[in-house]
Amino acid sequence: MTHWIRFRDAGGSIGFGTLDQHSGRVVQHDGAMFDNPRPTDISFAVDDLTLLAPCQPSKVIALWNNYYALSQKLDKAPPKHPLFLIKPPMSVIGPAESIRRPKSYHGKIAYEGELGIVIGKTVSGASVEEAERAIFGYTCVNDVTAIELLQEDPNFAQWCRSKGFDTFTCLGPCIATGFDWRTANVVTTLEGVERQNYPLDDMIFSPAEQVSRLSQDMTLVPGDVIACGTSIGVGSIKDGARVDVSIMGIGTLSNVLEA
Amino acid sequence: MTHWIRFRDAGGSIGFGTLDQHSGRVVQHDGAMFDNPRPTDISFAVDDLTLLAPCQPSKVIALWNNYYALSQKLDKAPPKHPLFLIKPPMSVIGPAESIRRPKSYHGKIAYEGELGIVIGKTVSGASVEEAERAIFGYTCVNDVTAIELLQEDPNFAQWCRSKGFDTFTCLGPCIATGFDWRTANVVTTLEGVERQNYPLDDMIFSPAEQVSRLSQDMTLVPGDVIACGTSIGVGSIKDGARVDVSIMGIGTLSNVLEA
Repeated sequence: MTHWIRFRDAGGSIGFGTLDQHSGRVVQHDGAMFDNPRPTDISFAVDDLTLLAPCQPSKVIALWNNYYALSQKLDKAPPKHPLFLIKPPMSVIGPAESIRRPKSYHGKIAYEGELGIVIGKTVSGASVEEAERAIFGYTCVNDVTAIELLQEDPNFAQWCRSKGFDTFTCLGPCIATGFDWRTANVVTTLEGVERQNYPLDDMIFSPAEQVSRLSQDMTLVPGDVIACGTSIGVGSIKDGARVDVSIMGIGTLSNVLEA
Repeated sequence: MTHWIRFRDAGGSIGFGTLDQHSGRVVQHDGAMFDNPRPTDISFAVDDLTLLAPCQPSKVIALWNNYYALSQKLDKAPPKHPLFLIKPPMSVIGPAESIRRPKSYHGKIAYEGELGIVIGKTVSGASVEEAERAIFGYTCVNDVTAIELLQEDPNFAQWCRSKGFDTFTCLGPCIATGFDWRTANVVTTLEGVERQNYPLDDMIFSPAEQVSRLSQDMTLVPGDVIACGTSIGVGSIKDGARVDVSIMGIGTLSNVLEA
């Protein structure tokens, strides 16, 4: 398992590399993360770096109703095809940034801890096997939602608006390659108190199935992220509170809702 | 009024410039279209160029229910805030490309002729006056929809999926600056037969109001496109048929649904 990060160093330069989670050392790479990255002689202590979102997606595809436990709780049938909305590139932040409350919105803001799939190859109309090979790795996602906007208009569910605000897609801390999603849980804590703890193997569409089916709908390109949907335990974040999304084998993504 | 185009020349190079619609001459520019473009000594006959989508949006924001005539026909109240979905960058094509039927979809495909707003400046939380200044110009849009997918799942309207397929956002032929939207109509023809002809001044949210309100929801960046929504007369395109979206002062955007 390799852990890839993007970072800003003390001099302000942006780079990427691999993180050894035991030693805390980062080996800078050159080239491109998804295309022949090569290690350099430069290394850092991770504590001397500012972590950025580990990739820069052209789009984030966020699934709804992709866990059996939540579909049962909501009394909704499991979908026949992934149900999704698109979050814009400017919504993405990394582990060192804060979620910002939109100036125009005073209602509840919800966290959703999720697994994120990071695409490594351009893929269109892929079989499940081809889709598996197009997955570069996995990250943690907090899919933030201005929940009171979602059903504000009775004629149109505002998925893209309620989830598309700047800073509402938290990604990180790294991308783990060779990660076995079947054996891990998503654990979300709010101010240190556990609120979500659900097994990834309760997923309705597996990661490779998601990539295969979504690649029938649109071309996926390197760095794109699919947020696999959340399960039970979603709740709202008070201004100033911290949300941690942890997945064993990937790490912990921490973000504060700026007061 | 200036008409900006992006093009591929006979040698395969991509460029941009201004088109004189009377003489058919294009003056190539260097720099960036939205940041200090400078005319060069190079010019072309437009017929010797392949027109590309006139900009490369990081996101396309597509409005629903933004004309009084359509809202009355649908018996839906005018919205209090623009209702929108997001279309991904890979959905965009220009005037020289065909709409492609998704391999996985055999149902009806609908055209929607629309006005497109092209953003020229990074803008967030803008007043209506600031928003007006952030508009670079206007283009024609065909907002294509795999209409039978939209309500396929009873629990989730699939706006992003039905409108997000590759080639489902036709833009062009140019971006017109200094265009007075209040005096023009959108005219959509299918195989030469008029299907839509509606006045832009029937809009619920004006272009500057759209940019102002949407900039409260997310940062808009140069090249982003807002598709202003359609009005009455939407219909389906048979495989092999041509759709023309014409707006006086901008031009005609023609695309064929590839059989």
